[in-house]
Amino acid sequence: MFLEKINSPKDVKKLRRKDLPSLCEEIRTALLQRLSKKGGHAGPNLGAVELTVALHYVFDAPQDKIVFDVSHQCYTHKMLTGRKQAFLYEQCYGQANGFTNPSESAYDLFTVGHTSTALSLACGLAKARDLLGQKHNVVAVVGDGSLSGGEAYEGLNNIAEQGTNFIAVINDNEMSIAENHGGYAKNLGELRRTKGKAKHNMFLALGLDYLYEEEGNDVNRLVNLFRKIKDCSRPVAVHLHTQKGKGYPPAEQNTEKFHSCGPFCLQTGEMLKAPEESYNSITRDYLQNKIASDKSVFVISSGTPAVLALDAPRREAMGKNFVDVGIAEEHAVAFASGAAKGGAKPVYAVFGSFLQRSFDQLHQDLALDNNPAVILSFWDSVYGMGGATHNGLYDVAELSNIPNLLYLAPTCVEEYLAMLDWAIDQTQRSVAIRVPAKVYHGSFVATDYSAQRSVVTKKGSGVAILAVGSMYRTAEQAAELLAQKGVHATLVNPVCLTSVDEKLLNELAETHSLIVTVEEGILDGGYGQKVASLLGDKDVKVKNFGLEKSFFGDFIPDELLARNGLTAEQIAAYISDFKA
Amino acid sequence: MFLEKINSPKDVKKLRRKDLPSLCEEIRTALLQRLSKKGGHAGPNLGAVELTVALHYVFDAPQDKIVFDVSHQCYTHKMLTGRKQAFLYEQCYGQANGFTNPSESAYDLFTVGHTSTALSLACGLAKARDLLGQKHNVVAVVGDGSLSGGEAYEGLNNIAEQGTNFIAVINDNEMSIAENHGGYAKNLGELRRTKGKAKHNMFLALGLDYLYEEEGNDVNRLVNLFRKIKDCSRPVAVHLHTQKGKGYPPAEQNTEKFHSCGPFCLQTGEMLKAPEESYNSITRDYLQNKIASDKSVFVISSGTPAVLALDAPRREAMGKNFVDVGIAEEHAVAFASGAAKGGAKPVYAVFGSFLQRSFDQLHQDLALDNNPAVILSFWDSVYGMGGATHNGLYDVAELSNIPNLLYLAPTCVEEYLAMLDWAIDQTQRSVAIRVPAKVYHGSFVATDYSAQRSVVTKKGSGVAILAVGSMYRTAEQAAELLAQKGVHATLVNPVCLTSVDEKLLNELAETHSLIVTVEEGILDGGYGQKVASLLGDKDVKVKNFGLEKSFFGDFIPDELLARNGLTAEQIAAYISDFKA
Repeated sequence: MFLEKINSPKDVKKLRRKDLPSLCEEIRTALLQRLSKKGGHAGPNLGAVELTVALHYVFDAPQDKIVFDVSHQCYTHKMLTGRKQAFLYEQCYGQANGFTNPSESAYDLFTVGHTSTALSLACGLAKARDLLGQKHNVVAVVGDGSLSGGEAYEGLNNIAEQGTNFIAVINDNEMSIAENHGGYAKNLGELRRTKGKAKHNMFLALGLDYLYEEEGNDVNRLVNLFRKIKDCSRPVAVHLHTQKGKGYPPAEQNTEKFHSCGPFCLQTGEMLKAPEESYNSITRDYLQNKIASDKSVFVISSGTPAVLALDAPRREAMGKNFVDVGIAEEHAVAFASGAAKGGAKPVYAVFGSFLQRSFDQLHQDLALDNNPAVILSFWDSVYGMGGATHNGLYDVAELSNIPNLLYLAPTCVEEYLAMLDWAIDQTQRSVAIRVPAKVYHGSFVATDYSAQRSVVTKKGSGVAILAVGSMYRTAEQAAELLAQKGVHATLVNPVCLTSVDEKLLNELAETHSLIVTVEEGILDGGYGQKVASLLGDKDVKVKNFGLEKSFFGDFIPDELLARNGLTAEQIAAYISDFKA
Repeated sequence: MFLEKINSPKDVKKLRRKDLPSLCEEIRTALLQRLSKKGGHAGPNLGAVELTVALHYVFDAPQDKIVFDVSHQCYTHKMLTGRKQAFLYEQCYGQANGFTNPSESAYDLFTVGHTSTALSLACGLAKARDLLGQKHNVVAVVGDGSLSGGEAYEGLNNIAEQGTNFIAVINDNEMSIAENHGGYAKNLGELRRTKGKAKHNMFLALGLDYLYEEEGNDVNRLVNLFRKIKDCSRPVAVHLHTQKGKGYPPAEQNTEKFHSCGPFCLQTGEMLKAPEESYNSITRDYLQNKIASDKSVFVISSGTPAVLALDAPRREAMGKNFVDVGIAEEHAVAFASGAAKGGAKPVYAVFGSFLQRSFDQLHQDLALDNNPAVILSFWDSVYGMGGATHNGLYDVAELSNIPNLLYLAPTCVEEYLAMLDWAIDQTQRSVAIRVPAKVYHGSFVATDYSAQRSVVTKKGSGVAILAVGSMYRTAEQAAELLAQKGVHATLVNPVCLTSVDEKLLNELAETHSLIVTVEEGILDGGYGQKVASLLGDKDVKVKNFGLEKSFFGDFIPDELLARNGLTAEQIAAYISDFKA
């Protein structure tokens, strides 16, 4: 076995050319073992085995710098750079996470999980090299899907202008997470069809040199190619045609399902966990019905139709009422704003972590004119996506402090659907909704959310608990614990994150000695601090519960809540111990 | 005179073809009158007269939708759509501002001042048209400089995919604010040189149709061209070669100075106001010296070298230590992060309003790995740029709630330079500095800002005032007013916006009955609310002074401060009236 002996890229270089395919097969077997047991980005990793082996065979990392865009294709790189045990032995799986990670290895240059960043990051590495008089190669590995992001285009532009050694490896597996969209993707398709000889070529147009390789999963052809361009003096785009899911028939046949997946049966490719009721499918079902009765409603996705549990047949069925703009969150928001101005009813559904790309567009392109588009931000929750690059816990400071924009926080499915229905049909303002991650059913339903009024759901005395959205259930539990001790807390559903209900808060301040806020997000810049500020010079004490400002990495959700004092028991204990 | 008779585009259409050049000359004369007296975007407006007249001659606004990118070329459009008096009569200048503005006119579709948004906004308008079964034309007017922004690329991609009527008028005056940068700009240059026939063509590569017009200031040629493409069934890029500053020799010769300018002498082109000492030139002088002694330091601009008062000869002199990436704020931050990781010392200088484009890059590409790049955010102040699209008052909520990132707020020139010097040479973390707008000299200088400690600058009793950065001087004045009444306030310079100095605050809470915070920015999500939150359940009252969350439009700075209670007198009065 070759893989067992590889502790660094130096060991890869010791192999004979003819042994490289065997190494690739061993890697693929290890990948599938881990992926089937632990889940992860199956398709991208399976397709990038050969190009990664070839890169480490030819280039000299870590002197040569290799940056993986979005880095969900970096497992092979990890195996070849001292972390093979995390793929070979189940008990070691925890030693390497699914993204490049400088704290794991000097071969990992950046912590990356958002797309379209590698060209710009690597352009900076090349600039430093040139300025410091160094000579190494700089390589960025970028998927075709990532090229839809504006940041990638800005990077290509500046790489061309910089004009020195830069190797952009375009790993073209003909797919984003789902199918690709946009003019650039058509150009890539034309280049594939013509084996790189198409009349129009975006890379040449932007000023890079260009090479095409049809056999992007043939490790020895890639070695030849990379040897040819190593130490090149100009920026070059090396366009490789690879196969997503390569070598595992279920992943080759169902590329979208296997882009990123949970544990699966290696024999059959069946997923081991059945999908549960989720806000993703709840939202999809609602929107399908809504569109059936109102053809001016349409759904926007930015390359992640899974946000709405929309598989290909369902997307097809939605026709013109579904638009996937590719991984282009900036465009998605401006596009929604324009469509709302034009009289349509756009609903943009996106994971909160990725909506960060649209901060300026939310501010300037949408909220400034208060166009009535609807933004649904998913998985802004400790129960959402894991990892420092995907945690959606920073949304409240981002969205709630933008003027005009109304950011609603439903506490249950029924309240969410009422908000969503109201938001789509109203024509007065831009509305965002913080879609919860955990499904609770309840009954707080209003027909108009424009007044931004909070709701007292239970009248008590002494202490009032204002629990935002997903934390309402926790506050209810805290109130039950307190009731057992004879403390009868007032409970409030704030409803909206973008302002505090001043009238209600002033009333509460006069009748209570303690106001407690609870939110599932970073405390700084959030809801509770607004409450503390409003009441800072009143005769009432305020205590804010929320998450410390930090990147959290991988964590167990309930543990993270407990570490931040966000359990019902901890909240009840604070209130019990409080001396007015 | 033709212009006098034009009250709407219908009146333009009544003119004979041969009279259009005269109308253009009248418009240009009016433009120069207003520009010379009031200042504004001279170059872009002078170059876009003919294309705007031709658009309104051929298309039928407001049924046909015309969207101006960044909209600093929209003066002619305003003159032709019912607002000529704001250009013809000095007493009416205030009736139209410098950007498209839906509250002024139904012909203005969006409030726009950030670049690269028109293609996406108009793509949304076209989607709504198609969905609602309407038939009008959608036109986006985009400068060559704006095409460097990733949002524009995302827009082009999706316009191509949408595939229906869309007219992208590329107003190519060969300039961004300064010269263009990036591979795309080289492609535009090649297209100009070949009169549109270059082998490589980015628009064709992305899937749009393409037309070229060399005489972009010949109104009748443009009328012919637009008539040809009106009601086209596919997206087309109409590439017009225009002249920035057209018709006014000083603006033709010095395009950068006249891109946007203050009042000037119409005869000589001399600016009427001499530049004062500013943080722009202070920063430039510091950086020039720093680079002289350390060649690993380099400056990044995103198309606005005026941030550092860097004219062309000075940029030239900086050589490799100055990089203008074009209007590409996303790239700029990721590029800086990569360069810092590679061992260089990048300093990215940008207007705060435009840094909003980089929110995700600051969060994910920079701060997550804590790479030691330096970000200088300028004009986050009521004394910065005017208008809802340019007010830099939203930076604190944006930057101060990102984990890891240190956001410093200097109170005076000397403190700023000490912070800047420390930030560049340290290698441990990402640092942003909120560069003030008004120049004060002072003496709060430290040699290490990593500890994030606030500084008690004056010990008093009863009340403590924590005044952030630019507001420190106001707090000093408030303290003087209070001293006259026998109240001796403690004064604190918080130094840093990203955290509160818990130890100091707890001490102050024990020894004072009132803590007052003062900041020149939106209160929500800002510094003061963090203080109120920390002290919410302590035995001390907290009062936060700052700006209400709002878009402000045009305002007189001191009036805006007064409207928000931010004068020394108002702060002193609150404290005087306060009953513990």
